Amino acid sequence: MKLVCSQSELNTNLSLVSRAVPSRPTHPVLGNVLLTADASKQRVSLTGFDLSLGIETSFAAQVIEEGTLTLPAKLLNDLVSRLPEGELTLFHEAEDGEQESKITLTSASGRFQLMSMSAEEYPALPTIDTSEAIHLPAELLGEGLHGALFAASTEETKQVLTGVHLKFQEDSLEFAATDGHRLAVVETSNSSEEEGSTVEDFAVTIPARALREVERMLGMQEKTELIALKVDEAQVVFEFGQQRLTSRKLEGAYPAYHQLIPNQFQRQMTLERRRLISALELVAVMADQKNHLVKFTLDSEQQQLSLSVNTKETGSAYQSLPAQISGDSLEIAFNLKYLMDGLKALGTSEIQMQLNGNMQPVIFTPLGETKMTYLVMPVQLKGA
Amino acid sequence: MKLVCSQSELNTNLSLVSRAVPSRPTHPVLGNVLLTADASKQRVSLTGFDLSLGIETSFAAQVIEEGTLTLPAKLLNDLVSRLPEGELTLFHEAEDGEQESKITLTSASGRFQLMSMSAEEYPALPTIDTSEAIHLPAELLGEGLHGALFAASTEETKQVLTGVHLKFQEDSLEFAATDGHRLAVVETSNSSEEEGSTVEDFAVTIPARALREVERMLGMQEKTELIALKVDEAQVVFEFGQQRLTSRKLEGAYPAYHQLIPNQFQRQMTLERRRLISALELVAVMADQKNHLVKFTLDSEQQQLSLSVNTKETGSAYQSLPAQISGDSLEIAFNLKYLMDGLKALGTSEIQMQLNGNMQPVIFTPLGETKMTYLVMPVQLKGA
Repeated sequence: MKLVCSQSELNTNLSLVSRAVPSRPTHPVLGNVLLTADASKQRVSLTGFDLSLGIETSFAAQVIEEGTLTLPAKLLNDLVSRLPEGELTLFHEAEDGEQESKITLTSASGRFQLMSMSAEEYPALPTIDTSEAIHLPAELLGEGLHGALFAASTEETKQVLTGVHLKFQEDSLEFAATDGHRLAVVETSNSSEEEGSTVEDFAVTIPARALREVERMLGMQEKTELIALKVDEAQVVFEFGQQRLTSRKLEGAYPAYHQLIPNQFQRQMTLERRRLISALELVAVMADQKNHLVKFTLDSEQQQLSLSVNTKETGSAYQSLPAQISGDSLEIAFNLKYLMDGLKALGTSEIQMQLNGNMQPVIFTPLGETKMTYLVMPVQLKGA
Repeated sequence: MKLVCSQSELNTNLSLVSRAVPSRPTHPVLGNVLLTADASKQRVSLTGFDLSLGIETSFAAQVIEEGTLTLPAKLLNDLVSRLPEGELTLFHEAEDGEQESKITLTSASGRFQLMSMSAEEYPALPTIDTSEAIHLPAELLGEGLHGALFAASTEETKQVLTGVHLKFQEDSLEFAATDGHRLAVVETSNSSEEEGSTVEDFAVTIPARALREVERMLGMQEKTELIALKVDEAQVVFEFGQQRLTSRKLEGAYPAYHQLIPNQFQRQMTLERRRLISALELVAVMADQKNHLVKFTLDSEQQQLSLSVNTKETGSAYQSLPAQISGDSLEIAFNLKYLMDGLKALGTSEIQMQLNGNMQPVIFTPLGETKMTYLVMPVQLKGA
C-alpha cells in the first residue's frame, strides 16, 4: 500500500473515527482504525468501531498502490495531530501471512514507523439492506438532540433509558429522553418532502453515546444539509455525505412518557431564563453536596420568585427575581442539578413554568419557536 | 463588624490569599481566611496561612464598624466569584464568647449567611524584626524565578531540593534549582541602588511552592516596581505594595552546584529553540512512557541534528533539523521530559548546547541577554 495525502485531511478524519474507538478494546484490533486505500476512486477511507458504535469516513488522496490494514488509533492520532501541515506519505510493504508488520509515515522533516495489524480480523460495520431512508435537515436533528440528549440516563444498567427515543409520525418527529427523575421532549415538524415516500409511523431508541457523536458531526454540516437515516431490526445508520455512523438500537419498550405530562395546571410563571440560571448558580454554592436542594417560593402578590437554600453545615442563601405569576402562591423544592440541566437546554430568553401542587410534576417550556417540554419531579420540602 | 466593599476588590483579594489556604487544613480555622476591618484606615485586610506559606493583602472599603473574624475560604471564594459586580455588605453581630456565629453578606439581588469562626485561634503571620530589606525590581525577580522554578524537585522528601536557592553577592543575584537530575541557574545583575546599603553577601533557599505564588503576584505588578525582601533565621517576607507573602526558609546546606558545570567543552551546537521543541514533541509520541528516551545524533559533516526514538512496542520516530555544530559527531541520549522543561524555560529564539562525551553533563544556554545555564545529565544509550 502506498498513498500521499494532506496532514489536515488525515487529521480531521482520524479524530472523527477515533471517537468510535474504545479506549479499552476487548480485542486488540478494535483499538486500531481500519484504513482502506482505493486506487480506482483515489480515496482513503477510515473506520472506527466498538461493536456498538461505528464511524466511517473517506477523503480524497493520491493512492499509488491500494491496500487495507489497521493502525493503532491513539498513537496515529497523537502523531498526525502534531505534524505540521503538508503532504504525508504512508507506505506499507505487504508481507504474506504476517499478522503484524510496519507501516512507514514520512513528512517533510522526518519519518515514523508504526506497527500495523492485518485487516482480516477487523469486524465489518453492519450494513442495512434497505433503500428506504428518512431524510432529516441537519438543523432539525440538531435541535431535537440538543433538547433531549442531556436528560438520558448515564447509568448503563438503565438500558432503554440510556437512549433517546425518536418517534416518527406523518410530518412530525419527536425526541424524548428520561432518566426516571426528569423528562425532556422536543417536538419538531419534519417537513422534508419525500417523493412518493411511504415511510410508516415508527419509533426507535438510539443510545445517547451514538447520538452525541451524531450531534458533534452535525456541527460540521450546513444547517440545510439532509441527513439520511436508515433503520432495520437491530441497527440504525446516519449518512452525512462522506461520513456514516452506525449504531445498534436499544431493545425494550420505551416508557409511555406522554402520560406523565399533566394536561392542566393551577399555576403558571413566566421568567427570564438567564436571570434564573444566575440566581441558581449563586444559591448552589451553599447547597448540600448530597441532595442539592433548592426551595422556590412563588409569591403571587409580589409577582416575585425567591430561591433559598439552607444547610446546617454551610449556612444559607437567598435570591429573589421578578416573575409573572398566575395562580396562588406556593412553596416547592427541586434538585438543583436537574433544574440547571433543563434550563441550559431550553435556549430561549424567556421560559414558562407550569405547576400544580408542591408534590406534582412541574413542566418548563421555552417561549419561542421550539416545542420543548421539560418535566421535573419536585422534592419533598424539608420540615413540610 | 460591618463593612461595604466592591465585589471585584473582594474577589481579587480573596482569590489571592486563598492560594495560601490549605485544601486539607490540619486545624479547621486554617481552612478559613482571616478578615480584619479597620475603621481608622477604612481598609479591610485578608490573610491566608498554611503555617508555612502566608499571604496577606488589604484593600479600601467603607468600614462602618470595625472587627475581626475568620470565614470559610473556599465557600466565600466560590460565592463572591459568582456574584455580579456591585456593592457588597458584610455584617456580623458580635456575640460574646461564641466560637461560631453567622455573618450576613448582602448583594443587590439577595443575601447569604455563612458560619464564621472567631479570630482568636487563627495563628499570627510571622513577622521579621529587621528594617533591612533588599529591593528587587519585579522584572528581575520574575526572570530568575521563571528560569529556575521548574527544575526544583516536587518530592517532599527531597527537602532542600524542593526550593530555589537565591544567592546575593554584591551587585548580582543568582537563582538555582535542581532535583538531582538537572540543574537550572539564572544569573541576574541586581543594579537597584540602595542608599547606604550594607547588606552582606548571603544565600537563602525558599520553598518552590511559595515562590510560585510570588511569581503569580509579580504578574500583577509593573516591571519596574521594587519588591522588598526581608530575611531572618527562619523566615522570608516578600512585600509588594499592599500585599505581603511570608514563607519559612528551607533548612540544610544547598548542593555546591557550580562544581557540576563543566568549564570546557569538546562540542558545541547552535540551533533554533522552537524547531527543536516541535521535533521533540513529535518523537515524544512514540517514546516509551517509562523512560522517555530520545537519542540525539550530532552530525558535524552534514551540520544536522537528528532525533530518534525506537521502542519495541510502538515503533520508531525520526526527525532531523539543521544545526551549527563544531567538534566531532556524537550520539547521546536524554530523558525527553527534562529536555522539554528546560527548552521551554530558555525563552530565546536560538539556543546553544555544549557537550563533552555522551556520558558527561550537557549544558543549554539561551543566545540572548539572560544568563541562564541548564544542565542535564545524559542517559545511557541502549545497546551502547
